[in-house]
Amino acid sequence: MRAGPSQEEIRRHNLGTLLRYVHVRGPTSRAELTASLGLNRSTIGALTADLTAAGLVREELPRDHGRAGRPSLVVQPEAQHIYVYAFTIEVDRVVAARVGLGGVVLDRREIPRPRGDRPADKVVAPLAEFVRDAAKMVPHGAVCIGSAAAVSAIVRQEDGLVHLGPHIGWADEPLGDALAEALGDERRPGLAPRVRNGADLAALAEHTRGVAVGCDNVIYLHGDAGVGGGIIAGGRPVTGHGGYGGEVGHMAVNPQGRACNCGSRGCWETEIGEYALVRTAGRDGTGSAAVAAVVDAAGRGDAMAQAAVRQVGDWLGFGVANLVNVFNPEMIIFGGTLRDVYLASAAQVRGRINRMCLPAVREHVRLRTPALGGDAALLGAAELAFERLLADPLEVATGTGGESASFSALPDPSVSLDDDR
Amino acid sequence: MRAGPSQEEIRRHNLGTLLRYVHVRGPTSRAELTASLGLNRSTIGALTADLTAAGLVREELPRDHGRAGRPSLVVQPEAQHIYVYAFTIEVDRVVAARVGLGGVVLDRREIPRPRGDRPADKVVAPLAEFVRDAAKMVPHGAVCIGSAAAVSAIVRQEDGLVHLGPHIGWADEPLGDALAEALGDERRPGLAPRVRNGADLAALAEHTRGVAVGCDNVIYLHGDAGVGGGIIAGGRPVTGHGGYGGEVGHMAVNPQGRACNCGSRGCWETEIGEYALVRTAGRDGTGSAAVAAVVDAAGRGDAMAQAAVRQVGDWLGFGVANLVNVFNPEMIIFGGTLRDVYLASAAQVRGRINRMCLPAVREHVRLRTPALGGDAALLGAAELAFERLLADPLEVATGTGGESASFSALPDPSVSLDDDR
Repeated sequence: MRAGPSQEEIRRHNLGTLLRYVHVRGPTSRAELTASLGLNRSTIGALTADLTAAGLVREELPRDHGRAGRPSLVVQPEAQHIYVYAFTIEVDRVVAARVGLGGVVLDRREIPRPRGDRPADKVVAPLAEFVRDAAKMVPHGAVCIGSAAAVSAIVRQEDGLVHLGPHIGWADEPLGDALAEALGDERRPGLAPRVRNGADLAALAEHTRGVAVGCDNVIYLHGDAGVGGGIIAGGRPVTGHGGYGGEVGHMAVNPQGRACNCGSRGCWETEIGEYALVRTAGRDGTGSAAVAAVVDAAGRGDAMAQAAVRQVGDWLGFGVANLVNVFNPEMIIFGGTLRDVYLASAAQVRGRINRMCLPAVREHVRLRTPALGGDAALLGAAELAFERLLADPLEVATGTGGESASFSALPDPSVSLDDDR
Repeated sequence: MRAGPSQEEIRRHNLGTLLRYVHVRGPTSRAELTASLGLNRSTIGALTADLTAAGLVREELPRDHGRAGRPSLVVQPEAQHIYVYAFTIEVDRVVAARVGLGGVVLDRREIPRPRGDRPADKVVAPLAEFVRDAAKMVPHGAVCIGSAAAVSAIVRQEDGLVHLGPHIGWADEPLGDALAEALGDERRPGLAPRVRNGADLAALAEHTRGVAVGCDNVIYLHGDAGVGGGIIAGGRPVTGHGGYGGEVGHMAVNPQGRACNCGSRGCWETEIGEYALVRTAGRDGTGSAAVAAVVDAAGRGDAMAQAAVRQVGDWLGFGVANLVNVFNPEMIIFGGTLRDVYLASAAQVRGRINRMCLPAVREHVRLRTPALGGDAALLGAAELAFERLLADPLEVATGTGGESASFSALPDPSVSLDDDR
């Protein structure tokens, strides 16, 4: 139990609230800010002045001002000057991006990744290379205020250790440390790269600026070789005690089912992951292309593919129905390979929800695909990297203001990254 | 997004925080309050004076003051003068209590309830009778600041409609309205009885003043004829979109299982509810006595009872393991009939967790029985009824201060309650 905030804490809170507003909603007039934030005009003016002085926002006259009288200035985030690096490490690819305040992707690179047992520092190398290249394009005076990575694995929040990522071939890989070393961030306390589960970050992104804006109870499901989940309940992520919450892929659905990579049996991902679909369809291959091929074949009338889609869709609905009974969510989002599977088997999924869910619980649930597409986790990583700034804008902006080209002084890659290329 | 609080909001927040502290922890010295709440001595003094003037706390010299110097006054909740009514409606009994600030049970009555299809107003009658009797014992000047009921059913939060309570024999029963009418609360806006699921309230009570104090990720499981769950994630209840979250009893665990009352098949409660245990043991009977008889027989060496306990314990562990993977909780609490089942089958439950849970997730989970015993839901209802007061102490205390005997003016029971007795 903690007593209320001080005046200074309130000011910081208000600065963060205003900055978050324009970060999420884009350019906003002072008049709208005054109305939406419940603060008076002079307070909005003072907060905006502080944020402008720190280089976080700028004010402009609106382009179209049809009405008489003095126009309300429009506050917009300094997308070109305040940025983060965001990364995703997925089963079949690695993506790196430079993302400006406001969620604007300024630069982006996607690198295919062969499946298999590659240690963390090898995966980190192309990310660091992207950062070195991107840094050359950064305008003078621009400030990097953080970085974060999404990874299809079970991650320890405090230091970004990847406990278990069977599908990316990792166990106990110190990804957080490897990223910090590659990016030179160990010299900047508080700005160390943050690492989280990809589905958790995809849920965050869809909730912040995607299909789930305004929904406080959301489950994001990500399918690839495995199945991950990102859960938001009551507007807040369900992280659990150690940050490992949301491992819905290892919810056992079939006591008589197949052995799972995790050591258990009948886990949801053994019934709805890409292997289950592709094998049930009597095919070979892996990855989203193989899943898409089965779904396409089913659409063209291939009976075996149709049966596989129906069966996997039925198990997809089975697990979704369980989650709906437990969480009473407003929305389920089907991402990764589950997007195609859901679209091809919506009847099975709905049927399971109707048969298995309590009427009061199923009444308001909406089934959706990601508005941010395959970049949901990447944009979620960017949101995570922006979080410190949004929590305390002046402290973070001032604290890094002297290192405007902070990422340009990376350690020599030939030493730390590429020694066995 | 909302801007920071005003000075007046901070004062109200601080008043609530101080009152909540002594409500939960009992008599507390001003010195401890100063240290724990992070406020200075004069602020604590001013807040305490306000709460004392409102009749919510009183200050006394400590009984034992061994040290030299002026002793720090001890602030204690006015348990005899500020109270709520708390009720539980369970499968086999109804309990009513008058509970004082600080969670002190001042008066309590337990009424056995035959199973079957009895409408809400018939169940409400003995609760109203308790309130009338209890009101005669209430000291002059004491103030009732609310009431709440826990019910083993799916409840719509906004008005306390019981959507579905198959085991108590209800469907779409307007319990909230019936309680308000019986208690005469329709004349006191904002003080209408609140109704919630019993497992949700048991979780709240164990988290506030039971075995889960300090645990922010907790799952409370309640067993009777069915199985309910109350889930706390990140320190806050998982209520879901409509308030129906936590229906873990209807998580399907056995696709080949039995038909469930809810219309689905293989729900967890069909495998671990009292019927499953008693029937698998080859016995008859219902209720906690029948469950205890099976567990006792197993302890005495009855082979069929032992097999039943092992089988039900195995399914108990199966569902718990799924919840652990999804929520990464610190603690699972086994309440109701599941207390005895868990204690008799802890090896099965632990075995399932070890086989089915991801190592990082299962590492810190503790399995416990309720510290508040069979009264967890009752005390949770009391906590719910106190919530408005704790959120804004002076507003609520002042708003009801003129109606110190508010519950003594109940409507004539012969008209509204007992018309077919």
